[in-house]
Amino acid sequence: MRRSFLIALLGAVSLLASAQDAPKHPTRVVVQVSEADSARWNLVLNNVKNLQDDLGVKNVAIEIVAYGPGIGMLKFDAPTNSRVSEALKSGVAVQACENTMRNQKLAQADMHPGISYVPAGVVQIIKRQQEGWAYLRP
Amino acid sequence: MRRSFLIALLGAVSLLASAQDAPKHPTRVVVQVSEADSARWNLVLNNVKNLQDDLGVKNVAIEIVAYGPGIGMLKFDAPTNSRVSEALKSGVAVQACENTMRNQKLAQADMHPGISYVPAGVVQIIKRQQEGWAYLRP
Amino acid sequence: MRRSFLIALLGAVSLLASAQDAPKHPTRVVVQVSEADSARWNLVLNNVKNLQDDLGVKNVAIEIVAYGPGIGMLKFDAPTNSRVSEALKSGVAVQACENTMRNQKLAQADMHPGISYVPAGVVQIIKRQQEGWAYLRP
Repeated sequence: MRRSFLIALLGAVSLLASAQDAPKHPTRVVVQVSEADSARWNLVLNNVKNLQDDLGVKNVAIEIVAYGPGIGMLKFDAPTNSRVSEALKSGVAVQACENTMRNQKLAQADMHPGISYVPAGVVQIIKRQQEGWAYLRP
Repeated sequence: MRRSFLIALLGAVSLLASAQDAPKHPTRVVVQVSEADSARWNLVLNNVKNLQDDLGVKNVAIEIVAYGPGIGMLKFDAPTNSRVSEALKSGVAVQACENTMRNQKLAQADMHPGISYVPAGVVQIIKRQQEGWAYLRP
Repeated sequence: MRRSFLIALLGAVSLLASAQDAPKHPTRVVVQVSEADSARWNLVLNNVKNLQDDLGVKNVAIEIVAYGPGIGMLKFDAPTNSRVSEALKSGVAVQACENTMRNQKLAQADMHPGISYVPAGVVQIIKRQQEGWAYLRP
C-alpha cells in the first residue's frame, strides 16, 4: 500500500511537471477571420501588429484562420495582400480553410502564395483553444 | 508533521485525479448567435456540421446559444428552420435566451419546437467557458 | 534521492495550492467592443447588465475593452453615454485602447470621463484570457 501510494505521488509530480512545460511562446493567440469585409481584414492585421509590437514578435505565436466569408482575405487579389505578406514574413501562420475553398470552388492557385491550409478552419480554432491558446474574434 | 505532510500529499493526488476526469465528450464547444443575419445563421450551422464531420458526432458536444438580435434564428418561421431541426436531431443543444424573448415579446409558441431555453444566453456562454468549453463566435 | 523526491512533492503541493487560490470574483469576463455600431454597443451594455443581474453584481468582475471601430462607444458624445456611466457606477471597468486613440487622433478630453485606458486593447483582451477570464465578443 505504501508502495502504490508513492507510485501515485510520482504520477502526480510528473503530471504537474508536464502541466508546467513552458510553451515555446509565452503568449499564443488564434485569430478568426469569418467576415467578407476588407475593413475587418485590416482590423485583424492591425490587431496582429499591435500584439507583436506590444509583446515582442518573439514572445507571441499568432495564427490567423480564415474561413467562410472570411476566406476572401487570403485570395491572391485581396486588397490586404501586401499586409498578409508582411504578417507571414514576421512569423504569423496564416491559414485558409479547405472546406470553405471546396464550397467556393477555390484552388490554391487562387490564393495568396505562402499561406498554409487546414482541413477545417473551425476545427483548428477549437483545437487551439483546447491547447490553451487565447481566442480573438475581431 | 510527517503525517500532515502525507495528508497534504493525498489531497494533492485526489485533486489531480479530479482534474483528470475525462468529460463525456473530448471536445465541447459553445457557439454564439447574436446577429440578425440569416447568412450568419447558415454559417453557424455550417460550422457545427464541420465540427461534427471532422471530429465525429460522438466526440463533440455542441451548444448553440442564440440571444439578442440572434434570437431570430430560432423563431418557428426562420429560413434556417429545417437546418436547426437537423442539428437538434444530431444531438446539438439549441438554446434560446429567455431574457431576449421577454424583451422581444416572444413566447415559446413563436419558437422552433424542440429547442431548449436558458434564463440568460450570455450567462450560459460564460458558464460553459468556465467549465472548459471552447467558445466560437462565427 | 529520497530527500529530493520529498522536495519535488513539496513543490507539487505548493503548486496545487496556488492553483486553488480563489480569485476575488468567482466569475470574470472581458467584453470586446470592436464595431462602429450603436446597436451593438447597446447589446454589449445589455449583456453586462444581464451578467450582473443573474450572477449578482458582487460575484462578477467585468471589463469592457473598446478598440478599433468600437472606440466610438466611449466618446463623450456617444449615444450610449449615460449607460456607460451606469456601468461604471456599478463597478464595471471600461477601457479605451490608446493605440486606437492615437490612430484616430482622439485625446482623453474627447472621451467619456471616468473610463480608464490601456495601451493596446487587444493585448488586454488576450492577457485577461491568459489569466482565466472568460471572453465575450457580442
